[in-house]
Amino acid sequence: MIKDLYSKKKIASNWFETLQKIFLYEFQNIEINYAKKNKKKIKRFKIRNWKKSDTKEEGGGSSAIIKNGNVFDSIGVNFSEVRGKFNKKFKSQILGANKKPDYWASGISIVAHMKNPKIPALHFNTRFIVTKKEWFGGGIDATPSFQDRNEKINFHKKIKKMCNNHNKKYYLKYKKWCDKYFYLPHRKETRGMGGIFFDHKQKNWEKDFSFVRDVGLCFLDCAKDILENKIHKKWTLKQKNDQFIKRGRYVEYNLLYDKGTKFGLNTNGNTDAILMSLPPIAKWN
Amino acid sequence: MIKDLYSKKKIASNWFETLQKIFLYEFQNIEINYAKKNKKKIKRFKIRNWKKSDTKEEGGGSSAIIKNGNVFDSIGVNFSEVRGKFNKKFKSQILGANKKPDYWASGISIVAHMKNPKIPALHFNTRFIVTKKEWFGGGIDATPSFQDRNEKINFHKKIKKMCNNHNKKYYLKYKKWCDKYFYLPHRKETRGMGGIFFDHKQKNWEKDFSFVRDVGLCFLDCAKDILENKIHKKWTLKQKNDQFIKRGRYVEYNLLYDKGTKFGLNTNGNTDAILMSLPPIAKWN
Repeated sequence: MIKDLYSKKKIASNWFETLQKIFLYEFQNIEINYAKKNKKKIKRFKIRNWKKSDTKEEGGGSSAIIKNGNVFDSIGVNFSEVRGKFNKKFKSQILGANKKPDYWASGISIVAHMKNPKIPALHFNTRFIVTKKEWFGGGIDATPSFQDRNEKINFHKKIKKMCNNHNKKYYLKYKKWCDKYFYLPHRKETRGMGGIFFDHKQKNWEKDFSFVRDVGLCFLDCAKDILENKIHKKWTLKQKNDQFIKRGRYVEYNLLYDKGTKFGLNTNGNTDAILMSLPPIAKWN
Repeated sequence: MIKDLYSKKKIASNWFETLQKIFLYEFQNIEINYAKKNKKKIKRFKIRNWKKSDTKEEGGGSSAIIKNGNVFDSIGVNFSEVRGKFNKKFKSQILGANKKPDYWASGISIVAHMKNPKIPALHFNTRFIVTKKEWFGGGIDATPSFQDRNEKINFHKKIKKMCNNHNKKYYLKYKKWCDKYFYLPHRKETRGMGGIFFDHKQKNWEKDFSFVRDVGLCFLDCAKDILENKIHKKWTLKQKNDQFIKRGRYVEYNLLYDKGTKFGLNTNGNTDAILMSLPPIAKWN
């Protein structure tokens, strides 16, 4: 059993970094294959390594982004490992940081906004955070701009199966948490078709980490499945416009409520990496 | 000297309501004249009256909006007069509300996003808020998507002149406050070309109210001047695209930091009226 914190941090952040590489490989392939098939110019991830400050002490990350791709209007696959002290205002909002504001955090975060408006926007994140407490958090969710019952059923089925491999209670608990977390109170609507969300997971490091790894691999499975099903489907300008409007809601959610965005901006993270979650174009009608 | 709170509220909210009518008349005329001259279909303000709750007790407002006009891509001219109790989390952030969360608030707020990208987005707001304390707040600011030195000089000159009629110290103080208030820390940039911003103005009700009225009339003067100067200028798609990108920053500011947006959403205000500040289209590059 891994007891020392140093190893936990190292192992967790190594996994997130490895997972980033897996996703880059997989999503790059999808973009390449589609471009080749449709005789389009291939778009590749641009990878930027950034440091939180001039010294190495506060860590940094790697932000990989495709803009204006053939499959992805935009996609960001970000890894980070950072440390520092929370500012006065923010520390009281973070578990275990009120008295001692020091933190260490590592995670992977993916947001994909699709060119084809029939394919939902996809979001995934897992993280390990250490203050005086230490915990995992994360989730998977999808945001379509129209209802697709079968897609929703398949998506939730995959997630449920993965959850059940760990604990029969996880799926329902984390599904409800997701619905609640991604609710826009001012619109009285949920962001998308749900998924799972969990935070402050701190009971059993090995088991929790095993679950966190599977959440990542499950997202890869879901994403490939959803993309394969719809990548060649035709779409109309009306559908694209509906997608732009839905993206307006996405922007509202991310800037008004999202914890990750607030965490990033409050800890002087890399702005481009944090705001890669915003779509290339959004509309308000 | 007006001492009773009832009269102050009545007089202030009457002014804000009257000013809304003045602005609707003036901006509607600008839209009509431009449409006639260019043989376009005339777009008119759609006015919606809303109540904060089913009873009359919590007040409400009037939201007037043009979408997809010939001059205005979008413009909202909102008046509201509301009362209630702040929620637990929010009350500590409001002057005089920590112990007793009751509030009354009335104000007028205008945001205009222009079709012509050479014309800056314009924003104006004045308000009178009553908790255990009572104060005026407000401001004028403009957000161009490229630098226009003369426009900036003239804009600030008008505002300075108006301020100086009240107090020689106001202009510099409120100009600095504006620059600070509309700063996007994560972008390390100011939102626009500045203007004035003030809050918690509570020294002398008559004098403060007189200043607040002049801020409104000064904004009308500035807006007409800026529009007249540029309304017929030609523009390119590149300039329009730059405007969309700048609007992305505008969205970031309003959803991440703006006090008025937070106030509105935290007090269950009318979502359409609050978010009329968001542009019809924004881009992130």
